[in-house]
Amino acid sequence: MAEPSVQGRIYSVCWEDLPDRPRHRSRIKWSIFMTEQSGPLVQKHSENGITTLTLNQPDRRNSLSMGMLDALADALADIATDDATRVVVLAAAGKVFCAGHDLKEIRDQLDSHEFQLALFNRCSEVMQQIVNLPKPVIARVAGVATAAGCQLVASCDLAVAADSARFATPGVNIGLFCSTPMVALSRNVSRKHAMEMLLTGELISAVRAEQLGLVNRIVDESLLDETVYTMARTIAEKSGHTLKIGKGAFYKQLEMPLADAYEYTAKVMAENMRADDAREGICAFLDKRKPEWKDS
Amino acid sequence: MAEPSVQGRIYSVCWEDLPDRPRHRSRIKWSIFMTEQSGPLVQKHSENGITTLTLNQPDRRNSLSMGMLDALADALADIATDDATRVVVLAAAGKVFCAGHDLKEIRDQLDSHEFQLALFNRCSEVMQQIVNLPKPVIARVAGVATAAGCQLVASCDLAVAADSARFATPGVNIGLFCSTPMVALSRNVSRKHAMEMLLTGELISAVRAEQLGLVNRIVDESLLDETVYTMARTIAEKSGHTLKIGKGAFYKQLEMPLADAYEYTAKVMAENMRADDAREGICAFLDKRKPEWKDS
Amino acid sequence: MAEPSVQGRIYSVCWEDLPDRPRHRSRIKWSIFMTEQSGPLVQKHSENGITTLTLNQPDRRNSLSMGMLDALADALADIATDDATRVVVLAAAGKVFCAGHDLKEIRDQLDSHEFQLALFNRCSEVMQQIVNLPKPVIARVAGVATAAGCQLVASCDLAVAADSARFATPGVNIGLFCSTPMVALSRNVSRKHAMEMLLTGELISAVRAEQLGLVNRIVDESLLDETVYTMARTIAEKSGHTLKIGKGAFYKQLEMPLADAYEYTAKVMAENMRADDAREGICAFLDKRKPEWKDS
Repeated sequence: MAEPSVQGRIYSVCWEDLPDRPRHRSRIKWSIFMTEQSGPLVQKHSENGITTLTLNQPDRRNSLSMGMLDALADALADIATDDATRVVVLAAAGKVFCAGHDLKEIRDQLDSHEFQLALFNRCSEVMQQIVNLPKPVIARVAGVATAAGCQLVASCDLAVAADSARFATPGVNIGLFCSTPMVALSRNVSRKHAMEMLLTGELISAVRAEQLGLVNRIVDESLLDETVYTMARTIAEKSGHTLKIGKGAFYKQLEMPLADAYEYTAKVMAENMRADDAREGICAFLDKRKPEWKDS
Repeated sequence: MAEPSVQGRIYSVCWEDLPDRPRHRSRIKWSIFMTEQSGPLVQKHSENGITTLTLNQPDRRNSLSMGMLDALADALADIATDDATRVVVLAAAGKVFCAGHDLKEIRDQLDSHEFQLALFNRCSEVMQQIVNLPKPVIARVAGVATAAGCQLVASCDLAVAADSARFATPGVNIGLFCSTPMVALSRNVSRKHAMEMLLTGELISAVRAEQLGLVNRIVDESLLDETVYTMARTIAEKSGHTLKIGKGAFYKQLEMPLADAYEYTAKVMAENMRADDAREGICAFLDKRKPEWKDS
Repeated sequence: MAEPSVQGRIYSVCWEDLPDRPRHRSRIKWSIFMTEQSGPLVQKHSENGITTLTLNQPDRRNSLSMGMLDALADALADIATDDATRVVVLAAAGKVFCAGHDLKEIRDQLDSHEFQLALFNRCSEVMQQIVNLPKPVIARVAGVATAAGCQLVASCDLAVAADSARFATPGVNIGLFCSTPMVALSRNVSRKHAMEMLLTGELISAVRAEQLGLVNRIVDESLLDETVYTMARTIAEKSGHTLKIGKGAFYKQLEMPLADAYEYTAKVMAENMRADDAREGICAFLDKRKPEWKDS
């Protein structure tokens, strides 16, 4: 957890000098911070319709500082409108997937309620960006994912973890309950299991995370990439237009009473049938040939 | 998947000639279609308070054509008011439980947005008929249940599957996301598991379906009927009036905030206590004798 | 199930004489009843921040009579404002954890709709008292927990059970569907599993309860106390203020749409950061020392 001493100072200068424009300030800080880095905070690599975003600050345990959140938000915003990306893999460099918020950053801003609120709101926005992104997002988890890092895994549509991965929402141990992480966690695992993680703050194993439904499957770390990218390729073969319709409707209908959910999704399906790709897909299926998607 | 060529023609004629009266048209088609069949689309057999509905178009993989949906809707409507039926078993003839919508029917109506919307609405209505039916419904699943067929399993109150059964929501493979099926699926299994099925379109095993909560239990196919009907008989021994009260309240309270759910169900229980069968049941229990239900 | 014959009489006298003041009446009954008892209906023992409440009417299978509910309500109300209690363990004396409502009491009031409604409302209030209590509650389950007894387990934040424990919602067997118990049950386990318990009324094993998520873990009965109190001590080491914030927010956000849940919890976290204990916790963590909580 070595940290260039300059960083803390830059943060406080920015935040104290420009207290009323948090988004802009974090941008300044982030660009300054960039000059200190060996590479971008979030690396992006695209291949065959699959874009991998890699949290790239392993010496800071890939913590979700305001800078990291901004970088992630920007990357996700780009992908949202990038026709070439059909599936996103969210990965992390180093031995820790993501350690949650940057506690040093929080300590440096201990008296700024404004900063705290801006930070937690920013984090919540990024999590919702993942949910609202019109492309499936697969978390590729190696190492430990804690607090907002665990939330990140929970917020992805799918998650594959190394069997050595571990998960926790340990905020309770430092007096700061994992209240935003629990929004995502409690929508993935049943309430007693979520409560156990939140109240004890203890790490759970990958095996347990798989049992609870926090991750879809676990594999030996040597097979992690193969498993993640096989899944990603399977999904990338589908029509991007169909994936967009389906993912969007999934989260919307989840929040509706049954009758409303059916009224809504029946319309979605009928609308989906107007799309070129549905027509092509059905005809290709009946003609026993491979469909050719237009992504429209 | 052999198909009498006449059927497609009858469908299109009906739909093209009478575009503004979908329900009525589907009735016409269905009665015409009936004449082509060796038996009804949905077979009904009642014994000892248990009514078994069997999807009976195995050569069409028991697909949920408009005709099949109408037949199922009619059968369910009859059962709703049939005092002799206490429990329903939903089964299927042949090697496929149900393959979802009839894609040939959809292709034949590819340009009729009206038909598509009517079809998906009709299907949603039937699923909700199962949920709203005042009698428990047990799915007896042998073979493959896909798309709206998987939704049918998810919509039943209980499900028992052969360990050779398999499940999928593969609409994404043909460009038509399983948007209505996911309403039922996502109310049975946790979101990452639902998303994996929806985004990959891949089949899951009965073992996996049991783990995810899509089915209550799995057994060797040779024991399927024994298991299903033992469960059905257990439930059929209860007061039909009590089952009606309980099932109805179950789905209603699920959609309420906790405080409202308690206010509602406390009233339901107090009302339940006014029933003859509750009085009889409590007295019989305390007197250590078998209750005699009046179903009132 | 031996019962002092005087009790039934006192109940009916109270209820028949004072039909319009149920709460007061039940108090009278309860204080009279107390004189018949060897000890209080709910025993309370506090040690090291952990308060154990023990249902203490084993010869009545710890049933949730109006008297027991009142005793439990009073104990929980005391704990809510007791700064010395950080964690609650809910246990039961004897071989049965809790058999649900007192059917003899219900039978004695068979014609009083008012009493029934008051009873089910009272029970619902107590369950919500557990949910709303600003301290975590762990159920320690040995023996059988049925009907409202199963609801009690489901209503606790956490539950640890002996592997010999069993659970059921058998109201359907006596014509009185477990409609209020299902509110808690269906918020713990997935709907097909809840439905199976509710419709068949059959007992499930501790192993099954653990698989379904009704309890967090099961252990050999000889290890039950050790497991429960290790968990309780782990939680009692946290800041009481943080536990209060977190538990309260958990159940609130569960009932909100995603965007609202995030807006709400981001505020909760920022507010949490104003607390002494969050500042102390973060600084202690970064300084690698043990935090000293002020519970504020």
